[in-house]
Amino acid sequence: MTNSKRTAFFISDGTGITSEALGMSLLSRFENFEFNRITLPYVDSVEKATETVLQINEATEREGAKAIIFDTIVDDKIRSIISASNSFMIDVFSAFLGPLEKELGQQPSDRVGRVRITENRGYEYRIDAVNYALDNDDGARTRYYNEADVILIGVSRSGKTPTCLYLAMQYGIKAANYPLTDDDIEDQKLPASIRNYKQKLFGLTIEPDRLALIRNERRPNSRYASTKQCNYEVEEVELMYRRERIPFMNTTHYSVEEIATRIMVQANIQRRC
Amino acid sequence: MTNSKRTAFFISDGTGITSEALGMSLLSRFENFEFNRITLPYVDSVEKATETVLQINEATEREGAKAIIFDTIVDDKIRSIISASNSFMIDVFSAFLGPLEKELGQQPSDRVGRVRITENRGYEYRIDAVNYALDNDDGARTRYYNEADVILIGVSRSGKTPTCLYLAMQYGIKAANYPLTDDDIEDQKLPASIRNYKQKLFGLTIEPDRLALIRNERRPNSRYASTKQCNYEVEEVELMYRRERIPFMNTTHYSVEEIATRIMVQANIQRRC
Repeated sequence: MTNSKRTAFFISDGTGITSEALGMSLLSRFENFEFNRITLPYVDSVEKATETVLQINEATEREGAKAIIFDTIVDDKIRSIISASNSFMIDVFSAFLGPLEKELGQQPSDRVGRVRITENRGYEYRIDAVNYALDNDDGARTRYYNEADVILIGVSRSGKTPTCLYLAMQYGIKAANYPLTDDDIEDQKLPASIRNYKQKLFGLTIEPDRLALIRNERRPNSRYASTKQCNYEVEEVELMYRRERIPFMNTTHYSVEEIATRIMVQANIQRRC
Repeated sequence: MTNSKRTAFFISDGTGITSEALGMSLLSRFENFEFNRITLPYVDSVEKATETVLQINEATEREGAKAIIFDTIVDDKIRSIISASNSFMIDVFSAFLGPLEKELGQQPSDRVGRVRITENRGYEYRIDAVNYALDNDDGARTRYYNEADVILIGVSRSGKTPTCLYLAMQYGIKAANYPLTDDDIEDQKLPASIRNYKQKLFGLTIEPDRLALIRNERRPNSRYASTKQCNYEVEEVELMYRRERIPFMNTTHYSVEEIATRIMVQANIQRRC
């Protein structure tokens, strides 16, 4: 029996981030369905598991079609409670642990699969990198550019700050950013404070219409947000990138995750954690 | 054949974030193995797939044991090239698409499973929330607290800023943060600027030894970083949380992702995207 509406649950005894990411990717392939998405992290006790089953059964009944479950629950007992619900369950870990066990010739441990931060240098890299991004945001300081793994440049509102923060948070990469202003553009050359770090520069650009839309939310009907100004700035910085041979990408149609990972590939920046 | 060292590849024609998260979770369960981890995003052409196969075969040969592949490649042609490598391949999407197709009674589309940002309100929520977190970091401004979904409080270096940024980036949640200073602690009461938002407050705390370690990296041998001062501050803010009935959590042993998701559960904060 099929129905064009379903509830999808992403359930975990951890953060739920993995089951959600995987489940969303899979469900996005079924375009005619509308999924009501519910993420339930930290389902780590019999009580919570029992409550969850009630919630699942309710959804199945309401929609007249089985709720879809994606779970990354490590604890066998919790998982078996959930599996007794009236649902279609995709048991992410179980599907792959058996084959991996066979290939590696070792039984998997039943510990929650995560690295505690005290054992994990990655945590410090990430926090350091986030602090670096915050301190070196928007051209605020330029004297620590020697420490940067990458320096993003671009016009105001082209996506520099969120990208720097994502590179820091996810990969421990130290990313500074420097806004190209009207003055820089008129000068037709790289500003003095970034000229010496040319090999670290990466340019962002964006479709002028989208830029105007974003700027209008910030400062409605300003010269800054006008189509004319946005067209001018974008055209000039793209010319500058080409003239100076600075690698660049157009951020218009990409998420922050995609912008960050594409920059890493294109500029060959290595993750720190 | 088994070996205690293997290379693990996380391969995708997208960002690689999903295959990496899933693969790392699974591999962390095999504690006696040491995995050399390589993430390859945007393997989206025959050329890149062919290069990737060479890289995989090299790893298998070097270690005398099959490289482990986790892939979330949508394109059949690319995936079949990779599957011809000398490796143990866990094909994440394929494993689940068949069962899902059967349950939903619909063929999955072969489009890359992602929502373009122009169709996705989530993108704007996230960017707005990141800007909100930046503007309202560290007590910099308090007059926009009425817009906050949550206001994190805690002593300096207890993890407030990265947590706010993660809540914004991942879930579109507007999170401000306010540092509890020596003065606030001596007053034995909530600072005036946050008193009116008591229902939005969430406290962070941290083990004093860990706090001293973190602060020592920032300002070595200062009073600020001393064990005595850290003990005093942590003890007092925990008393304050309890007295004022402010929900709180100890961040010492958790990653930023875990702190963020636990706060959402404990304070019942709904995601915005």
